[in-house]
Amino acid sequence: MKKMVEFSLLTEEGQPFTFQDLLGDYWVIYFYPKAGTSGCTSEAQQFNELFEQFEGHIIGVSPDSTKSLSSFKEKHGLKFTLLSDSKKEFAQALGILKDGRLVRSTFIVDPWGRIRKEWINVKVDGHAQEVLEAYRKIKEEDFSINPSILQRRAFRGLRSDPIEDEKLLRLIEAAHLAPSCFNKQPWRFIVVRTKENLEKLHEALSSGNYWMKYAPALIIVHTKDEFDCQLSDDRNYALFDTGLAVGFLLVQATQMGLVAHPVAGYDPIKVKELFGLDGRIVTLIAVGKWGRFDQLNEKHLELEKSPRNRQELSHVVQLV
Amino acid sequence: MKKMVEFSLLTEEGQPFTFQDLLGDYWVIYFYPKAGTSGCTSEAQQFNELFEQFEGHIIGVSPDSTKSLSSFKEKHGLKFTLLSDSKKEFAQALGILKDGRLVRSTFIVDPWGRIRKEWINVKVDGHAQEVLEAYRKIKEEDFSINPSILQRRAFRGLRSDPIEDEKLLRLIEAAHLAPSCFNKQPWRFIVVRTKENLEKLHEALSSGNYWMKYAPALIIVHTKDEFDCQLSDDRNYALFDTGLAVGFLLVQATQMGLVAHPVAGYDPIKVKELFGLDGRIVTLIAVGKWGRFDQLNEKHLELEKSPRNRQELSHVVQLV
Repeated sequence: MKKMVEFSLLTEEGQPFTFQDLLGDYWVIYFYPKAGTSGCTSEAQQFNELFEQFEGHIIGVSPDSTKSLSSFKEKHGLKFTLLSDSKKEFAQALGILKDGRLVRSTFIVDPWGRIRKEWINVKVDGHAQEVLEAYRKIKEEDFSINPSILQRRAFRGLRSDPIEDEKLLRLIEAAHLAPSCFNKQPWRFIVVRTKENLEKLHEALSSGNYWMKYAPALIIVHTKDEFDCQLSDDRNYALFDTGLAVGFLLVQATQMGLVAHPVAGYDPIKVKELFGLDGRIVTLIAVGKWGRFDQLNEKHLELEKSPRNRQELSHVVQLV
Repeated sequence: MKKMVEFSLLTEEGQPFTFQDLLGDYWVIYFYPKAGTSGCTSEAQQFNELFEQFEGHIIGVSPDSTKSLSSFKEKHGLKFTLLSDSKKEFAQALGILKDGRLVRSTFIVDPWGRIRKEWINVKVDGHAQEVLEAYRKIKEEDFSINPSILQRRAFRGLRSDPIEDEKLLRLIEAAHLAPSCFNKQPWRFIVVRTKENLEKLHEALSSGNYWMKYAPALIIVHTKDEFDCQLSDDRNYALFDTGLAVGFLLVQATQMGLVAHPVAGYDPIKVKELFGLDGRIVTLIAVGKWGRFDQLNEKHLELEKSPRNRQELSHVVQLV
């Protein structure tokens, strides 16, 4: 996503206001050519009427002086902050000057300072209402459970269609963006996807994981205790941090339309022997496209479409 | 996201084709009123010309008989599958019948069977090209690194603005959707957000984590070994599975515009004493809005905007 450009301007009261002041909240930043003209007055009044619905997170920007802005604000009882972009540098950086004139434009910026929606060359009528709808929609989507977290299930009905190396590596790339204790990055992955190596790994699977033999790729996730922090009270971060990384991998796979199903049913000592590894074999992850079910036993076929099973949320969380 | 409705129809060759056949790949499913008419012929030819660009994943649906479809396909050398919705039940379920007549419509369905984009009441001219652009854009976005995984950093510059309980619980809800060994769900969370309890927890922080005192919420993540599988070769899944859950929590927090920064710098025995816990205190997570930096020491301030530091991907992955 595109970042909002960094800026540092003065408010109508002559106070500094910068990009950094936006961070942490959603904001509407709207640019208008000239305070006091009829279009700009109408636009300001529209936003002003919706001030509470926008939770006060509106900023108006124009090339006017702080003094003009101060009168404009007072005259119309505007509740939001106005910024003076007197040198048009902010507008310029956003590419909304045309022949030196500011093009009426609006941006929704998210708590990370990313531009989530923009309107360039705005028609004033009904504009603030349209922006409000988009503002609410973005917030609503962001506050919903992440669609990949929601879609992910431990599916077993895998198609054997090969998955490109580029996609398999993308999964590891996502995992490798996880945080870890002192940034030690203890996770290691062996992506097994040749017929010969897959067959070798199949020898280590427990019989209940017969369905993994249809997966076009199996990822061996391994680590060693000494790769990560070992802290007081027997805290071994190698396992926890590898879990974090696999969490990211699962989200990425689901977003890419791939099943990624981690299992514990394998012989870790055999995996180590077969692939010349030591340390801990934390999990194997079956990766592939969903959609083939004829190889599944009755119980697994049923699980494939059964509702998700979780303890009540109140069982795992306390607010204090 | 809206799911494509389940269907079971016959192809122009009289073979069954169902919803399940869509799973695992991206598909374009387009509905047209009558094979052989000029608009429907033009539309079919447009899609046919782009068959390879759509990777062959096009399906045409109409109320025609399989026999009519078979001649239509042969006459125009169509490369893709045509389905006969002779009772218009599929169209009906999708809500694209008007006065009993099929409204020309197109859907892009993703590998999970979710409708990602739809066009209702299609104008034929240039339609297939427009669909192709959307098809490519959706795939490109899905194959990009998840924006929350990419945006997430272990930020320390927290604002003390309170975070609503509803949002804090949403984080736990996401975590609780993680998979675990035999679905044991070993993770436990104490969300600390009252002044009194936060101050109590501050006593357990290491001095380097002074910045956490500005967080409006701190989450104690704990578990016990016996909450999860203990398997051969010393495999303790309580830590790994709790890591998975925290991975999901971090993705959700970032999507919601919140910093969630897990740390290891605290006295776990003190945390247990203070909050009457036993077992393992796996991590504390500081949660809050980003954007206040004046409380950070010089080193931490620099880290706040420094580039991400990771080992080369090739150090953590092998493809075999």
